[in-house]
Amino acid sequence: MDPRIREHAEVLVDWSARIERGDDVVLVLGPDAHDLGVAVAEKLGEVGANYVAVYAAAEMGRAYTMAHDGDFEEDPAYHLALYENADAALILGGGRNAAEFGDVPGEKVQARRKALAGVDEARLATDWVKTVHPTRSLAQQAGMSAEAYADFVYDAVLRDWESLADEMARLKDVLDAGSEVRLRKRETDLTMSIAGRTAVNSAASVAYDSHNLPSGEVFTAPFDTEGTVRFDVPMTLRGTRVRNVRLTFEDGEVTDYSAETGEDALDEILATDAGARRLGELGIGTNRGITRPTGSILFDEKMAGTVHLALGRAYDACLPAGEAGNDSAVHVDMITDTTDDATLEVDGEAVQRNGVFRWEDGFEG
Amino acid sequence: MDPRIREHAEVLVDWSARIERGDDVVLVLGPDAHDLGVAVAEKLGEVGANYVAVYAAAEMGRAYTMAHDGDFEEDPAYHLALYENADAALILGGGRNAAEFGDVPGEKVQARRKALAGVDEARLATDWVKTVHPTRSLAQQAGMSAEAYADFVYDAVLRDWESLADEMARLKDVLDAGSEVRLRKRETDLTMSIAGRTAVNSAASVAYDSHNLPSGEVFTAPFDTEGTVRFDVPMTLRGTRVRNVRLTFEDGEVTDYSAETGEDALDEILATDAGARRLGELGIGTNRGITRPTGSILFDEKMAGTVHLALGRAYDACLPAGEAGNDSAVHVDMITDTTDDATLEVDGEAVQRNGVFRWEDGFEG
Repeated sequence: MDPRIREHAEVLVDWSARIERGDDVVLVLGPDAHDLGVAVAEKLGEVGANYVAVYAAAEMGRAYTMAHDGDFEEDPAYHLALYENADAALILGGGRNAAEFGDVPGEKVQARRKALAGVDEARLATDWVKTVHPTRSLAQQAGMSAEAYADFVYDAVLRDWESLADEMARLKDVLDAGSEVRLRKRETDLTMSIAGRTAVNSAASVAYDSHNLPSGEVFTAPFDTEGTVRFDVPMTLRGTRVRNVRLTFEDGEVTDYSAETGEDALDEILATDAGARRLGELGIGTNRGITRPTGSILFDEKMAGTVHLALGRAYDACLPAGEAGNDSAVHVDMITDTTDDATLEVDGEAVQRNGVFRWEDGFEG
Repeated sequence: MDPRIREHAEVLVDWSARIERGDDVVLVLGPDAHDLGVAVAEKLGEVGANYVAVYAAAEMGRAYTMAHDGDFEEDPAYHLALYENADAALILGGGRNAAEFGDVPGEKVQARRKALAGVDEARLATDWVKTVHPTRSLAQQAGMSAEAYADFVYDAVLRDWESLADEMARLKDVLDAGSEVRLRKRETDLTMSIAGRTAVNSAASVAYDSHNLPSGEVFTAPFDTEGTVRFDVPMTLRGTRVRNVRLTFEDGEVTDYSAETGEDALDEILATDAGARRLGELGIGTNRGITRPTGSILFDEKMAGTVHLALGRAYDACLPAGEAGNDSAVHVDMITDTTDDATLEVDGEAVQRNGVFRWEDGFEG
């Protein structure tokens, strides 16, 4: 076994999910995440936690959903009971074909998702962490060889998270104290209010309210957005390849938009509801192990030298207690490169220029 | 997909487990049972049942057990809740290596099994059915090519179960009405009492108290065994190949025994407890789709033209209400061929001779 698989399991169990003796852990794994599943099971044995392994095979989900008449039962009690009684859920992504649901009618997929919303909620109420095992399918999606892709994944995952968390704490402090963020680069000049909002130091650990491994971003919930932004990192939205989205905001709402390719997907997203035309998230990538986009949002949005903005739902963790943030059925991240002639300012002071943070070597003030 | 995989799923869901709309089904599947898992998920979708898939990978179980200090938590609540709230459990065997637990200390395996006894009990309280997908590992264990092994499995599984159930009902009637069974063949003359005991018509369906697919046997719980029996169908007991076991009973208890190979395994089994030296089961194979032993008890004991006897625990279904049968921590089946100069009598009347039942063509009375 590649020794990095065991290291991955160790980071996941110890740093990310903070699993302790006696914890009841649900392992949710894709068919090709088997090897990571073995390493995680070993680590859980070492810690003295319990595990139940749930097999998340897209081919099974597809066959079931296609054959079903669409009248799905809401949150079956046994399914709910598994997660309601669990302390943690470790989701080990590793499918065989990301396009497996490509021929399932969308309304059926939505109906099943909706029927299991309570189960999802129960899972999200645990100390859940989502990670991926480098599979051939993901390598293909990234356009990389399996070996190069595995190197890519482990560079992103096997970091010194403790020291990165300390570094990100600085950025969080700046955002928490700030009122206005301005992003300037080619074809972009955007201002957002963040007054009263709390940033999340997403250090790949439930101890930081962070549920992705890898992570490496600091995010908050902006509002009153004004101006224009161009997203030049390619992305896949609802199965459609989308390039060079440009959004213009007035009074916090999208008033004009375009995309070089895939504008249809954008049309559909913006038409979802009123919240889909407002921002729910401003995120700043800090993971220097991620050096290129691979078409997977789990990695792309964490890339150091990028900023992402999400249309739609805001995270509660960023809002003052009792205050509702932007609400929507969607949360769609879009990414812009900040390494080339770009400045990110908080209250008029540059916090990042050309991808370099103020406290880093090489920052040009 | 081999069309027989879908037929297998259909027999399993419709005939064996009698799954209906709204049933909460746990699918427990081995890594190489994936294709059968897809077919079963499709069938469950068609029926409108719910499913949660549990991944039963021996490599994960081994890694976990090896790494654990051995002080396993008893029946974790979330694990128990899954099965306690389920209607059915479909166990789709299909591992990659039957010897995976070969290097795990026996006491740890036992400790984990004991700690999860309540979970097992909850699973056995559902409409559970155990079957196997023809994997390369099982083909190798059987000493057959993957294709020949798949043919073998489907010949055993895809039968006219309804008509076989009717046929087996005759055998059950004979056993239920009878008091004494006598088996005679070369080096064998054994009598057992079955007075007051009830035979199970094991027709591969929960509707018949039968939880194996394939099945095809009628079994009861004998006592007061006297005489000698030779088991000439080779078997694997606790990982040891065992051939030509001979047991001699007096007053229901084994008083003398030998084996041509693997006698050590027999020593160990008989030393378990007092019940391990008495019979718990007499089973008569009726599945004519199974034409050769393959080293898997799920198939071997169902083979038409064989009789099996188990040392150890008796099944409650065979006992009068409130009466305790033979009790033991073990239940070890051993098989003898009845096709060659062999007679099975109930109360002095032959019910099978040379593998042919009294009501079949070719029976020599």
